Amino acid sequence: MTVLGIDPGLERVGYGVVRREGSRIVAVDFGLVRTVPGPVPSRLAVIFEAVEKLLEGHAVSLMACERLFFGKNQTTGIDVAKAAGVIQLAAAHRGLEVVELSPAEVKLAVVGQGAADKRQVQYMVTRLLGLPEAPRPDDVADALAVGIAAALKGSKPR
Amino acid sequence: MTVLGIDPGLERVGYGVVRREGSRIVAVDFGLVRTVPGPVPSRLAVIFEAVEKLLEGHAVSLMACERLFFGKNQTTGIDVAKAAGVIQLAAAHRGLEVVELSPAEVKLAVVGQGAADKRQVQYMVTRLLGLPEAPRPDDVADALAVGIAAALKGSKPR
Repeated sequence: MTVLGIDPGLERVGYGVVRREGSRIVAVDFGLVRTVPGPVPSRLAVIFEAVEKLLEGHAVSLMACERLFFGKNQTTGIDVAKAAGVIQLAAAHRGLEVVELSPAEVKLAVVGQGAADKRQVQYMVTRLLGLPEAPRPDDVADALAVGIAAALKGSKPR
Repeated sequence: MTVLGIDPGLERVGYGVVRREGSRIVAVDFGLVRTVPGPVPSRLAVIFEAVEKLLEGHAVSLMACERLFFGKNQTTGIDVAKAAGVIQLAAAHRGLEVVELSPAEVKLAVVGQGAADKRQVQYMVTRLLGLPEAPRPDDVADALAVGIAAALKGSKPR
């Protein structure tokens, strides 16, 4: 089972491809898609194409996306949701299921505690994947955590 | 100048193609894209393809989308923003500019009053376009109003 974990955003999209091999989880690929300031539709196109390339390059069996909640900044929230929309469209085009996991679900699955802090999540992501150092920036670690959580759950589609 | 006006949604996307001919505005095409309950990514794919077809079928020079604001129902708001994301992606793929207009901007342009009610907007949309009756449902009238507002403004890209 290979999962593409996604931490969505308009400026930065963290991604992490992980494969479950029995009880082990292996990091296949991870990184960040960045977009430069400019019209939102063009930035969405950059994100869509980057995700399409990731799905072409890896035999992904599930996309796992961090579930969105809106805070005080509505405009940012709307832009992040637009980005999540085009990312999930890329999954649909390949017939891929998408699961959305809340931050608490991800922490529970990765650290064993829904209220774990960022450092604990980073530490466990690094350890579980046997990486030499913590993946940076946070968006990448978060995307890997979402991917790991979905791979551990073998989760249900939304 | 031909504008594709959009009232975005996950279940229903209203659309209205209008052309400005001097001081007149003509309705070229309008209607509703509906999606059936099911996984969000599949519904986004239906919306994306429908908008692609509209853009293929009409020589659109500008997309105008109702600007989103989130109210009490966060989940609905996030889904609507995801839909707006794939709609604007379809525009970006054709190199089309997208303007977003707030409901108040649309009302001001169409009725001359930012606080106009739905009925006044419907009445003016019907009159301005010389339609035999008010376009239904509201999503379609709203999309036409957004298109008309953008055509009258000759507006600026976001």
